[in-house]
Amino acid sequence: MADPFQTHPRRVAIIGVGLIGGSFALAMREAARDITIVGYDRDEVNLAAAKQLGVIDSAVHSLSQVVKDADVIQLSVPVGQMESVLKEIAKDISPTAIITDVGSTKGNVVELAQKLLGPAAKRFVPAHPIAGAENSGVRSARKDLFKDKSVVMVETDFTDPLPFEIVKRCWQACGAKIETMTVNRHDSVFGVVSHLPHILSYTLVYDIATRIDAETFFHFAASGFRDFTRIAGSNPEMWKDISLANKTTLLLELQRYQDLLRYFQDALESDDDEAIESFFKIARDARRDWSE
Amino acid sequence: MADPFQTHPRRVAIIGVGLIGGSFALAMREAARDITIVGYDRDEVNLAAAKQLGVIDSAVHSLSQVVKDADVIQLSVPVGQMESVLKEIAKDISPTAIITDVGSTKGNVVELAQKLLGPAAKRFVPAHPIAGAENSGVRSARKDLFKDKSVVMVETDFTDPLPFEIVKRCWQACGAKIETMTVNRHDSVFGVVSHLPHILSYTLVYDIATRIDAETFFHFAASGFRDFTRIAGSNPEMWKDISLANKTTLLLELQRYQDLLRYFQDALESDDDEAIESFFKIARDARRDWSE
Repeated sequence: MADPFQTHPRRVAIIGVGLIGGSFALAMREAARDITIVGYDRDEVNLAAAKQLGVIDSAVHSLSQVVKDADVIQLSVPVGQMESVLKEIAKDISPTAIITDVGSTKGNVVELAQKLLGPAAKRFVPAHPIAGAENSGVRSARKDLFKDKSVVMVETDFTDPLPFEIVKRCWQACGAKIETMTVNRHDSVFGVVSHLPHILSYTLVYDIATRIDAETFFHFAASGFRDFTRIAGSNPEMWKDISLANKTTLLLELQRYQDLLRYFQDALESDDDEAIESFFKIARDARRDWSE
Repeated sequence: MADPFQTHPRRVAIIGVGLIGGSFALAMREAARDITIVGYDRDEVNLAAAKQLGVIDSAVHSLSQVVKDADVIQLSVPVGQMESVLKEIAKDISPTAIITDVGSTKGNVVELAQKLLGPAAKRFVPAHPIAGAENSGVRSARKDLFKDKSVVMVETDFTDPLPFEIVKRCWQACGAKIETMTVNRHDSVFGVVSHLPHILSYTLVYDIATRIDAETFFHFAASGFRDFTRIAGSNPEMWKDISLANKTTLLLELQRYQDLLRYFQDALESDDDEAIESFFKIARDARRDWSE
């Protein structure tokens, strides 16, 4: 097949071969059969599974080895591990290698990359594929995970255009649609539409789980509860990292959200049926418009 | 077929032939072909559709007419209309008729029934089928909506045992599993597992919809947001009524929920990664146990 990348990466290193890293590997191989994909994972069982399932060509057991000679290095580790991984690989990256990530927050990663990668920072391309699920691990990886999904690429003031273009073409080869945003805008938007609902959902389940008679409450929970709390089934470490990495936005947004809850409480306290119905109606109409 | 009711209701009146009332009518007819089902709905278009779809045998245009000679009267109207409907039907109910409801809150309905039904109050049986969806209207009605679903029957200190037993058998004939609870317990449990999440979900969508750049936020909302906000697509009038009817529980629970949010905020503010991860983990584990 024609080279979809123009500057075709021959060797791709995936650090963290989970759902996202693994799906990227599968989609890249589908797009360019002759690519070599090497993988590293701190979880040896997961790494062995990645090799066995054919997601990666070889399983490498050290960070310095996995980045050696790689043309593209994808960091698909939880956001909280980004610092230690960047520190460790910085000295072993080849002088032309492109480094990219898939983190759900971007401010902290961009800052760390600029600080820790030295001259290689201009080949660092922050990206965030809007795909995923509460499942994790390489066994959930699928080659079509990114098909027709958005990948947000974040513009920094230190990334060179060519690495940006190459990472963009990799994602396009995976079937994704590219969107671009600034770092702050990214963290603000995803803080509201993704991180905040995760915290709210975890908090409701925590609220019930910590009651003495939690069992009765869970017994009567039905489909509305199921959907509302599906995201509370997500990985606690990953969401701890995201919360901390997007702390500024989240503290602001938690405040705004509670101001709105207090507005609702006041309306309820004073039996203001018009205010309550209009509050619900604005939300219902917006939700309908969104889903259509 | 054998009479599944022992005391077989010959004529069932459905007041409010929507998703729940309509599905009850379909399931009852499936269980006992010779039943006559009469329906009333304030929405004439919906009422005509109920007749046309064969959900009811006849469409009646006044409350006094629909309850006349009915053996079982099911009130399937929004909780906020219960008062005016009870007032209007009280004088026309036959001296043996059983009155039951399907409201999502029970405290207010029980109080109103006792106050407004006079001697007929001892034939009032409060019930709450745990089924339904964000869809409403008779066109969403299905004869198997209650199959293997729970119906919570609420014990009052004024309901006679026979009416209670007959309503119970009606629901069993619809395929439902019967659970019993006190009024306060019912409103407390459903306040937490159903009403609270609805308010939280509406509030998040309201939060986004009222931003100047709402469009960008909605554009990047993905599957986590979709599930979390599915219940924000619910009927605003119905949920205004439920909120007001269960006000005491909800004010208490909104407070507790915000205390937990504040606990989380404090942990985030002080970078307490252990507290955050453990908060998420308790929720995640409970959510997993629940779904298994």
